[in-house]
Amino acid sequence: MISYWNDFPGMPEALEKVSGIIRGSSASENPVISSGLTGLFSGKGKLLRPGLFLMAARFGKLQEKHYKLAAALEMLHLATLVHDDVIDDSPLRRGLPTVHTRFGKRDAVLIGDYLLSRCFLITADYTSPQNALNLARLISVICTMEIEQNNDRFRSNVSLRGYLRKILGKSALLFSLACYAGASEAKAPREVCQRLRRIGYNIGIAFQIIDDILDYAGNEELVRKPLGNDITAGLITLPVICALSLDRSGTLQDIFSRPSFTAEDGERIFTLARQSGGVEAAGGYAENYTNRALKEIAALPPGQNRDMLETLTRRLLIRER
Amino acid sequence: MISYWNDFPGMPEALEKVSGIIRGSSASENPVISSGLTGLFSGKGKLLRPGLFLMAARFGKLQEKHYKLAAALEMLHLATLVHDDVIDDSPLRRGLPTVHTRFGKRDAVLIGDYLLSRCFLITADYTSPQNALNLARLISVICTMEIEQNNDRFRSNVSLRGYLRKILGKSALLFSLACYAGASEAKAPREVCQRLRRIGYNIGIAFQIIDDILDYAGNEELVRKPLGNDITAGLITLPVICALSLDRSGTLQDIFSRPSFTAEDGERIFTLARQSGGVEAAGGYAENYTNRALKEIAALPPGQNRDMLETLTRRLLIRER
Repeated sequence: MISYWNDFPGMPEALEKVSGIIRGSSASENPVISSGLTGLFSGKGKLLRPGLFLMAARFGKLQEKHYKLAAALEMLHLATLVHDDVIDDSPLRRGLPTVHTRFGKRDAVLIGDYLLSRCFLITADYTSPQNALNLARLISVICTMEIEQNNDRFRSNVSLRGYLRKILGKSALLFSLACYAGASEAKAPREVCQRLRRIGYNIGIAFQIIDDILDYAGNEELVRKPLGNDITAGLITLPVICALSLDRSGTLQDIFSRPSFTAEDGERIFTLARQSGGVEAAGGYAENYTNRALKEIAALPPGQNRDMLETLTRRLLIRER
Repeated sequence: MISYWNDFPGMPEALEKVSGIIRGSSASENPVISSGLTGLFSGKGKLLRPGLFLMAARFGKLQEKHYKLAAALEMLHLATLVHDDVIDDSPLRRGLPTVHTRFGKRDAVLIGDYLLSRCFLITADYTSPQNALNLARLISVICTMEIEQNNDRFRSNVSLRGYLRKILGKSALLFSLACYAGASEAKAPREVCQRLRRIGYNIGIAFQIIDDILDYAGNEELVRKPLGNDITAGLITLPVICALSLDRSGTLQDIFSRPSFTAEDGERIFTLARQSGGVEAAGGYAENYTNRALKEIAALPPGQNRDMLETLTRRLLIRER
């Protein structure tokens, strides 16, 4: 979906280049790896993380090697998707069969490891040691948060703080690193780098909140998966947390007064969260983080780069809902 | 099993230090990670890879940071074990329940990813960029070879060359990198580094051949798993490849004249490989690689380090069979 970037001068060409690097770097003599990866790179992804990285790099001096680093970020993202799908036993991703559905879980675990290693290979080759460290640290955190989320399944652990911690690991840290590393590798001024780090962080939080809202109120055809997945898999997200304080019937409070809930409870929770205004309240949080991002963007050096980042943020977090 | 190293001056203390680093570096607020890793580090492993790294480093100037790098190598090894056990659905490892048996496959995949990321974290922090690259490249190759092995399950693909390729990825490259990186990080002379690379490579090949032989002729109690695992899981190893040219009954040739074989064929192959002298012939290969390693060791600078490496090689590859 490089067409997503058609209104952004220079970006379709840049991301075409990034796609080429991903395809080339993972071209392998091994037919399973090639074919598994070709499916993953079939162009259904928006390439958001490399896109943000390159937009941030344009605040400094964009160099050839930055396209490779952008590709590494997407490979990291793809590795986590492949492992997530194994973990969640998901049959579809972006409307296509997942890697483990096509090749089995064995190869899916290994293809994920392979992508991780390619990502580190590029990072070790082209990045500053500090950003290589940042990346490795990020992956540790992502894994820790995923394990935490996994442990909390079906536990009546309805805490806003806990939720925000988990979506940090799920999205916000990678968005934040993409923006920061892009600017810092391109030697943008330090304050611009720090601001972009905060922008990525806020975009990432809002992005994940919206993703979680879509599981309650999305258009099934656009989302390309059935609604209500999260709660029936035991995951409590923001619409439920918001609904708990809004639900006057007391039914939600009753369900969560027990230490754990079931998949059947999940279906009731789904309906209650929609009825009691939890979705709208969660939307308020997304708006809040989006506005924080927009405010920081407004303080960036003016010009085409800033305008593009603003347009992307609005498109990603406001228009698409 | 640090006691394995009791006869090697300085090594038990050094490996105790490495264990401490592994435990400390993976100490995590997350109870699943801590407890999963504590099980893995319960001391049943010989710490061969960090042991080889440190022995090699003693040919140069051993520094404090080398203990951390040795720990990173063991973490990489442990990550591959955790993922392997998920892939193979193995209930036991070193006589103890595997991580995925205790915590489920979800957490096992993530604990493996976590260990990989910790390994990269240490590498990015302390190693030369060249060795960080070597490590990332190594992991790509390990994954590719594992996927290849996985694809070849139950295929009548009886080729010595194919077998050697796969055990490269399974053991030899990591042993080889451990020896080379130890020496080169400690700034040993270039020719010593190159020689140690070849020593690690030959030790690794012999080690894996012996491991594969043990699946045909080991003492079940010592090996701590039932024999015949490989072939009933569809994996052709050296004893079978050797047996094919030795079996006069023609039964093995018959089985492998079809494009694939079954788990039931596997049981017959197991018996035929033992009866036709395949195990002994495979032993000849192991001896050959061991002798190559010993010959290279004899050409290292004389002294305690060289003697220790020779003792380790003999103990690992000759006495223990």
